Amino acid sequence: MPLEFPKDANEVLNIIDLIGTLVFAISGAMAASSKKLDLFGAAFIAFVTAVGGGTIRDLLLGATPVGWMNDTIYIYVILCGVGITFLFKAWVRKLRKTLFLFDTIGIGVFTILGLSKALILEVPPIIAVIMGMFSAVLGGVIRDILINEIPLIFRKEIYAMACVAGGTLFILLRNTIPFEWNVSVTILTIIAIRIVVIKYKIGLSSIDDSKRRIFTKSE
Amino acid sequence: MPLEFPKDANEVLNIIDLIGTLVFAISGAMAASSKKLDLFGAAFIAFVTAVGGGTIRDLLLGATPVGWMNDTIYIYVILCGVGITFLFKAWVRKLRKTLFLFDTIGIGVFTILGLSKALILEVPPIIAVIMGMFSAVLGGVIRDILINEIPLIFRKEIYAMACVAGGTLFILLRNTIPFEWNVSVTILTIIAIRIVVIKYKIGLSSIDDSKRRIFTKSE
Amino acid sequence: MPLEFPKDANEVLNIIDLIGTLVFAISGAMAASSKKLDLFGAAFIAFVTAVGGGTIRDLLLGATPVGWMNDTIYIYVILCGVGITFLFKAWVRKLRKTLFLFDTIGIGVFTILGLSKALILEVPPIIAVIMGMFSAVLGGVIRDILINEIPLIFRKEIYAMACVAGGTLFILLRNTIPFEWNVSVTILTIIAIRIVVIKYKIGLSSIDDSKRRIFTKSE
Repeated sequence: MPLEFPKDANEVLNIIDLIGTLVFAISGAMAASSKKLDLFGAAFIAFVTAVGGGTIRDLLLGATPVGWMNDTIYIYVILCGVGITFLFKAWVRKLRKTLFLFDTIGIGVFTILGLSKALILEVPPIIAVIMGMFSAVLGGVIRDILINEIPLIFRKEIYAMACVAGGTLFILLRNTIPFEWNVSVTILTIIAIRIVVIKYKIGLSSIDDSKRRIFTKSE
Repeated sequence: MPLEFPKDANEVLNIIDLIGTLVFAISGAMAASSKKLDLFGAAFIAFVTAVGGGTIRDLLLGATPVGWMNDTIYIYVILCGVGITFLFKAWVRKLRKTLFLFDTIGIGVFTILGLSKALILEVPPIIAVIMGMFSAVLGGVIRDILINEIPLIFRKEIYAMACVAGGTLFILLRNTIPFEWNVSVTILTIIAIRIVVIKYKIGLSSIDDSKRRIFTKSE
Repeated sequence: MPLEFPKDANEVLNIIDLIGTLVFAISGAMAASSKKLDLFGAAFIAFVTAVGGGTIRDLLLGATPVGWMNDTIYIYVILCGVGITFLFKAWVRKLRKTLFLFDTIGIGVFTILGLSKALILEVPPIIAVIMGMFSAVLGGVIRDILINEIPLIFRKEIYAMACVAGGTLFILLRNTIPFEWNVSVTILTIIAIRIVVIKYKIGLSSIDDSKRRIFTKSE
């Protein structure tokens, strides 16, 4: 999702965006493997998990062809994620904590990138916050629909609320502090909220499905 | 979904559109609560139930950014619906009949608003009828996919056929009677068909799920 | 999905496109009937099975209003498919082998039509291959989500890989041999791969669901 940020910030965000894409792809491939899907199924679900959120945001905003169609690097990063998952499945499972951290960073970056893209297209601020949150969470929602589960974020994880909180903060601060500062502060806020929530097990948990996912808890 | 109707008719339709949005949001929140989702899940499902049909219609027509992104009142109405459901759940359950009536009125209005929007964009009449029906029913289809059920309208409710009948009537009458009359007659037709269908239990019912929904039967 | 092909080739492809649409619609109606859905449910699922892949491709490419909205013949062909399925269900079941053949031809044609449409809109070649595959398989994916099953192509059928192989061949040959030849060769390749795969039962089969579908095996 390349945006017109100041050049340096842009480069850092692009790299984190790609890391987030990789981690989301691994999350999708792991979910597929837990359902015993074949390699194509895993690649497909990795793909929609990684780009689904940004795709729906772009479709709603009318920003077509959607982001990943202009820049083939997303495809290659996703294929890497699928390959890593299948070659080193046991190792990936052990890396939970590291992956959780990258996943959390990815969610923060996806939120702020999505929100900024929406603001550039001049939608109202509250809609921009929703677009930011959609960018971060809808990939996972589509993943869960495809593997025939009620989406995880509706039951357990409250990271969507972290995205809304961070996005709202970004809107409030945007005329007060410089753009680069705002991006950093709000991404860090999203990460901090999510880590605190996971650590102290805040949130409503109606259905236990801890065995199904790898990124939902830090231990 | 603001359209270029004559001003008075437009105001009445806009109000009914918002009431329909509220009732659809309540329907979504109730469905979410029946699946024991958390508050975010309920708000998300209320949101897609209320705006999903119009969103898909706008995407297919290429009318982006989609309707609710330009007018934030839809967001606030939906949040009201979620709040009402959570604060007064028992009361909402008792209001079944009233809610069913508003739901039916909403379906009629959504159909004719969607159909008119499609006609303005100059699609063939049969496609406009489908767009009208999609506006009314696809929100409920997405709601049911998200809570991991086969969509209700595929099994029991035949209100989609009421939308198709009303939409077809609108197309047939549109060069014969004045626009405002046509809108009124066709919306009332949709409402009448649905009430008759529910009252006399017309339709194929293969799977019993009467406990799951609140709006499917009037008693 | 009308494209600017040479006129004769275009006519042949259009006819096969419509046959593919008919067979996909029958496949959707059969799946709906296996879940005991009512006639509206069957028509709806037949519709999304037949046009879903092309619709998502067009949305992603920003080619709206999407294809079937400009040419009502698709609607009528789909309604024919639903009517045939409901009137002659036993006969349709007996025609398995013939339907499987048309389904396979349809998949080949959908892939190359979708890929060509993407190339006309100047997306990168690898994205065009994905768009071709999406055109062929996503209708079936949506069908399976609607009837609340994990999509078949993620578990058993590897025809998506046949589409990717044929699409890649099309890209490789496109500056080497004449357009009409390329279309013929790549469509035949897709058909050949799929028939070989089915005949020799190549592919990962984790979950047995042979009873659910009619087109998955030629036995």
